[in-house]
Amino acid sequence: MNTWGKNIKISIFGESHGPAIGMVIDALPAGLILDMDEINKQMKRRSPGRNNMSTMRKEDDEPLILSGVFEGKTTGAPLCIMIKNDDTNSKDYSKIKNTVRPSHADYPARVKYKGFDDYRGGGHFSGRLTAPLVFTGAVAQQFLAKKGIIVGAHIASISDIKDSAFDAVDIKKDLIDKIKIKDMPTIDDNAGSLMQEAIKKARANGDSLGGVIECAAINVPVGIGEPFFYSIESAISSLVFSVPAVKAIEFGAGAAISKMRGSEANDQYYLDENAKIKTESNNNGGILGGLSNGMPIIFRAAIKPTPSISLEQHTVNIRNMEECSLEINGRHDPCIVQRAAVVIESCAAIALFDLLIGEGIL
Amino acid sequence: MNTWGKNIKISIFGESHGPAIGMVIDALPAGLILDMDEINKQMKRRSPGRNNMSTMRKEDDEPLILSGVFEGKTTGAPLCIMIKNDDTNSKDYSKIKNTVRPSHADYPARVKYKGFDDYRGGGHFSGRLTAPLVFTGAVAQQFLAKKGIIVGAHIASISDIKDSAFDAVDIKKDLIDKIKIKDMPTIDDNAGSLMQEAIKKARANGDSLGGVIECAAINVPVGIGEPFFYSIESAISSLVFSVPAVKAIEFGAGAAISKMRGSEANDQYYLDENAKIKTESNNNGGILGGLSNGMPIIFRAAIKPTPSISLEQHTVNIRNMEECSLEINGRHDPCIVQRAAVVIESCAAIALFDLLIGEGIL
Amino acid sequence: MNTWGKNIKISIFGESHGPAIGMVIDALPAGLILDMDEINKQMKRRSPGRNNMSTMRKEDDEPLILSGVFEGKTTGAPLCIMIKNDDTNSKDYSKIKNTVRPSHADYPARVKYKGFDDYRGGGHFSGRLTAPLVFTGAVAQQFLAKKGIIVGAHIASISDIKDSAFDAVDIKKDLIDKIKIKDMPTIDDNAGSLMQEAIKKARANGDSLGGVIECAAINVPVGIGEPFFYSIESAISSLVFSVPAVKAIEFGAGAAISKMRGSEANDQYYLDENAKIKTESNNNGGILGGLSNGMPIIFRAAIKPTPSISLEQHTVNIRNMEECSLEINGRHDPCIVQRAAVVIESCAAIALFDLLIGEGIL
Amino acid sequence: MNTWGKNIKISIFGESHGPAIGMVIDALPAGLILDMDEINKQMKRRSPGRNNMSTMRKEDDEPLILSGVFEGKTTGAPLCIMIKNDDTNSKDYSKIKNTVRPSHADYPARVKYKGFDDYRGGGHFSGRLTAPLVFTGAVAQQFLAKKGIIVGAHIASISDIKDSAFDAVDIKKDLIDKIKIKDMPTIDDNAGSLMQEAIKKARANGDSLGGVIECAAINVPVGIGEPFFYSIESAISSLVFSVPAVKAIEFGAGAAISKMRGSEANDQYYLDENAKIKTESNNNGGILGGLSNGMPIIFRAAIKPTPSISLEQHTVNIRNMEECSLEINGRHDPCIVQRAAVVIESCAAIALFDLLIGEGIL
Repeated sequence: MNTWGKNIKISIFGESHGPAIGMVIDALPAGLILDMDEINKQMKRRSPGRNNMSTMRKEDDEPLILSGVFEGKTTGAPLCIMIKNDDTNSKDYSKIKNTVRPSHADYPARVKYKGFDDYRGGGHFSGRLTAPLVFTGAVAQQFLAKKGIIVGAHIASISDIKDSAFDAVDIKKDLIDKIKIKDMPTIDDNAGSLMQEAIKKARANGDSLGGVIECAAINVPVGIGEPFFYSIESAISSLVFSVPAVKAIEFGAGAAISKMRGSEANDQYYLDENAKIKTESNNNGGILGGLSNGMPIIFRAAIKPTPSISLEQHTVNIRNMEECSLEINGRHDPCIVQRAAVVIESCAAIALFDLLIGEGIL
Repeated sequence: MNTWGKNIKISIFGESHGPAIGMVIDALPAGLILDMDEINKQMKRRSPGRNNMSTMRKEDDEPLILSGVFEGKTTGAPLCIMIKNDDTNSKDYSKIKNTVRPSHADYPARVKYKGFDDYRGGGHFSGRLTAPLVFTGAVAQQFLAKKGIIVGAHIASISDIKDSAFDAVDIKKDLIDKIKIKDMPTIDDNAGSLMQEAIKKARANGDSLGGVIECAAINVPVGIGEPFFYSIESAISSLVFSVPAVKAIEFGAGAAISKMRGSEANDQYYLDENAKIKTESNNNGGILGGLSNGMPIIFRAAIKPTPSISLEQHTVNIRNMEECSLEINGRHDPCIVQRAAVVIESCAAIALFDLLIGEGIL
Repeated sequence: MNTWGKNIKISIFGESHGPAIGMVIDALPAGLILDMDEINKQMKRRSPGRNNMSTMRKEDDEPLILSGVFEGKTTGAPLCIMIKNDDTNSKDYSKIKNTVRPSHADYPARVKYKGFDDYRGGGHFSGRLTAPLVFTGAVAQQFLAKKGIIVGAHIASISDIKDSAFDAVDIKKDLIDKIKIKDMPTIDDNAGSLMQEAIKKARANGDSLGGVIECAAINVPVGIGEPFFYSIESAISSLVFSVPAVKAIEFGAGAAISKMRGSEANDQYYLDENAKIKTESNNNGGILGGLSNGMPIIFRAAIKPTPSISLEQHTVNIRNMEECSLEINGRHDPCIVQRAAVVIESCAAIALFDLLIGEGIL
Repeated sequence: MNTWGKNIKISIFGESHGPAIGMVIDALPAGLILDMDEINKQMKRRSPGRNNMSTMRKEDDEPLILSGVFEGKTTGAPLCIMIKNDDTNSKDYSKIKNTVRPSHADYPARVKYKGFDDYRGGGHFSGRLTAPLVFTGAVAQQFLAKKGIIVGAHIASISDIKDSAFDAVDIKKDLIDKIKIKDMPTIDDNAGSLMQEAIKKARANGDSLGGVIECAAINVPVGIGEPFFYSIESAISSLVFSVPAVKAIEFGAGAAISKMRGSEANDQYYLDENAKIKTESNNNGGILGGLSNGMPIIFRAAIKPTPSISLEQHTVNIRNMEECSLEINGRHDPCIVQRAAVVIESCAAIALFDLLIGEGIL
């Protein structure tokens, strides 16, 4: 299902090696001045080919707006963006049509679509399809910013190298702003350098690394979210799990909360110096019963190591049904975690945007 | 949003202390003979008041079918079940209207609904609302069973006591069948006994415990699921996060995959003795690019400790906006993990059922 | 599909001869004091057995509220109403299982549901299922009334007997209020009497009559509705065509507009004495490009004559695939138009309610 | 709402004078060989500038496929088509920003979008947006044709000039094929010539004409459609009323059925020479209880005369709130009915396609 949203509707399209990828975003409020510089900055955080940590595929990822914007402002009609695929190199992929790559979507996609899917570069399952999500997330963030809501993400870890964590009860806008302009979006630059080293080493070994993204949203009003099937956790996770490579998500204290006693886990209330209701801890990640409680919304998404590695692997040729070995020698990322931070951030922004639209707040 | 599903539509209703709770299930295929014994067995796994590990509230949880079943078979029209609330004891709750309970939905719900929500016993946010999910999950499981698909869940851990894990590449139907009839649904009975001890101790201390549920689905055909916004992970997580108290979900190796190298994490393909494509490991939990790859689908959901504890807590009275202390003395569970296993299992069954309906398989 | 709505979600359930029928209404705003007298008045306008123009089946149609209302006010959680089926007389229908009744849903329903549908009294296809729509419409009307929006319907015609039409550019609330309390909801009581005579005559002949309902909504703000797939016409017609027996709908001048020249059809603008923008005519029925233009929204729905007649008809027994004749001798209405006015009115109210919720107006 | 569909999802985008218009079509089955000639033939039936009956705006309306097709076949991923706007002439429209055109969407759109909508040429409300619907309809018709289902439409009338009607109980594929290749899609060519004369005369007078389109679908299997909110009538009408200028729709005998007695209106069953169940008449237009009964599905949509006329009209300048007069001198159609036939046909095809996908038939 390539359409998402309860109040807005986003519809994603495109394949890695087709003419273009893009998205239609419906039900944007009219009258927002689109800050294209800000959008392009976010797009750049994801785009490949910028340094030796990512794939050599070079894409400008310039979003062409086909509709929904007039004289620089949203019109209220659907906004369609198209991003052309320039640097496609489809020859690399022809041989993998039948030799399905381990941990890629190849095998189930080939079965599901009866062999008719565009298999080149992962086709519609390519991580490249996250570019329109980043565009949409950037637009959503501009709407959210009007209400003071800020969303940001940093690399919590790559392999076993950890960044500092967000302070669960007090995250400053300044910190988020600073992270967004870094090549390695970490709180601690030293951790960022170690991560870069590790990525280069993995590349040299023909191997790849995974990691964890931590994302937060601050200043979300109390009472956003819906009971049951559109809890904030449901909304965010349904989008985050649409990003290829995410295998886990946890909110607040996350999996660790299962080992706490209630007396430790419960976030007790107090009144701060402005007589605002706050909680002393934030083990629930700002969400109770699916609804925001005014504390920072915090979650972490675990990203698997890039499945494309040049080391020899064991697989099956699904045409002749024979086992075989495979070395993947195309252009690929030894680690996508640093590029994925802005994608996860975008998912959170889109989910919150949709929920706030539903409340009539934006 | 109390309606869920792309192909089926389920609509949940009810409050903890209202006349009844229930669900409307639309787009069930016609002609299934409902096995009410099987449904009631599943309902009993969740229902309270059965032993000293759960709340003393006694509810028969007998589902009354109002529509959609004729001569014992589904008709294709919406099936509505209603479960009456018998043992409500609303006096207990009057004082907590304004004294919001930590880690419950009270505070954001009161804000969201401007004070008009039925606050008694958590109202619409009560864990009691998971009973209709179990009913629906039991119906879904009967449909899935026709295609050989089996879904089961056990307690992976309570506090720091661990059960054995499912074998990620080979889970037998027999094992799942055995777990389903246990009071403590664990693989290892010894772990189950230790968990029971821990729960009793927590109750004695006026405290509560959390845990982790591991759930698996076997024999799911290859290619089920949808790219992007209705990946199997998105479908399951959107339902699982509708269950109050779940704070994390992970598929396959889950969060741990972020620390692996690609060469470790990738699930390499081979042909088994029946020339069927299998993977040597199952770090992706049976899901690639959002689609099933034929291996067991495996995930774990982390459940927070019950927020209702009788130990004194710090909170705020939102009427007079003063800090105060709170001891919760009503009936409540020291641990809901053992009752939640069937709920998580039901969520997985419903999600898979919806996806299979969409494929025209059921 | 038994669930409807973009912003609210309504889910209908039940069969004519099952235990109960009802509806779940999700996403109602919290805090509305439900005026049950008003709701029951609307329910009575539809309920059978009140006089010799309708079926002898006697149903109180008392709606039991199972959830979503607390201390007389909506809570924001789903409202479920259940209406019990009391006066079922299922023996009448057993013989028609295979002898499909002309112009009823029997034949396609039997094929669609492979013979598993509850065929008694039309099952889920019974006109009785419109009772929950009337309940929901009455709730919607209470919300709309807070913004001054009034919805009303009268019988435009039964057979070839015509009532006066609404004045397309000026409909008073008083007129609508008066119609709502009439047994025969006509503007012109004389037309109403003639219609009653015609219905009695049709009953005496074992035959049935159809007619047309004209419905209007006044004081709808300008700009409600959505381009394309959720135009006001799309929203209203998707609901109105869910009512069994409706075969046509037209807005404003309707089908007749196709014979006008543009210079006649165009509704030219002027400023009224309060400097408000109005149109001189209202051939577009208050809707342009799918959006409200501030003029009365007006449409007409054509209702076919009740298919159940006691005259002999020709049909097929689908079990043994033989032609046969059929006389229907159960209880049935010689005309449902007078009961359908409140149903059509309810559809319009629900559609407008959903659109206004989407605008954040209610 | 610019997204439609229960089983497929179509998302429309674009404005009359923006860079491009288009549509994303999701959930197309994989493996259909797209017959682009056939698609272009349908596109041409709608495209402007072909003769002196339509606007002089010349648009090739060549659909560029951006995704979802690989090696000439559908892949199962979303198909995005883009149609560039070439012959835009935006200067014509600047003066009408505030002088709202009678019977156009101008006034409510300007209010709804707070003055931010792209008003040029009607913007997102332009009839030009129906081009992507025709593309999608053509694709849908290719899928339907695989099951023998044929959809076709002719001009039933323009002004008071009538074409012959479809034979309600027996429509041949040959007849439909013949109509599709005519400039004036009528059954009776003589009627077509008279219509052309009338259109030319209206143009000469600076006025415009409306008309009625009759559409039929044959060979639809029995039991397609859903009770209540997704009846065939609901599905088709929700799409047909998204087409600007449609003000009425009627199925089968339509509005006229309201004047029949039940004994006349009921479609009695018989067995044809192949022992297939048929009805003697088809007053229900092939639909009972929202479901197909195997007879031709027939409906008529009434199209209002083009609102753009060069005769002087009375209107209001919404900027300075003064009454004024207006003559519209841009390029416009004196009648769009002949171009609308393929649009209405496309709506029917899309609606049936969606319903059949839901049944697992395509």
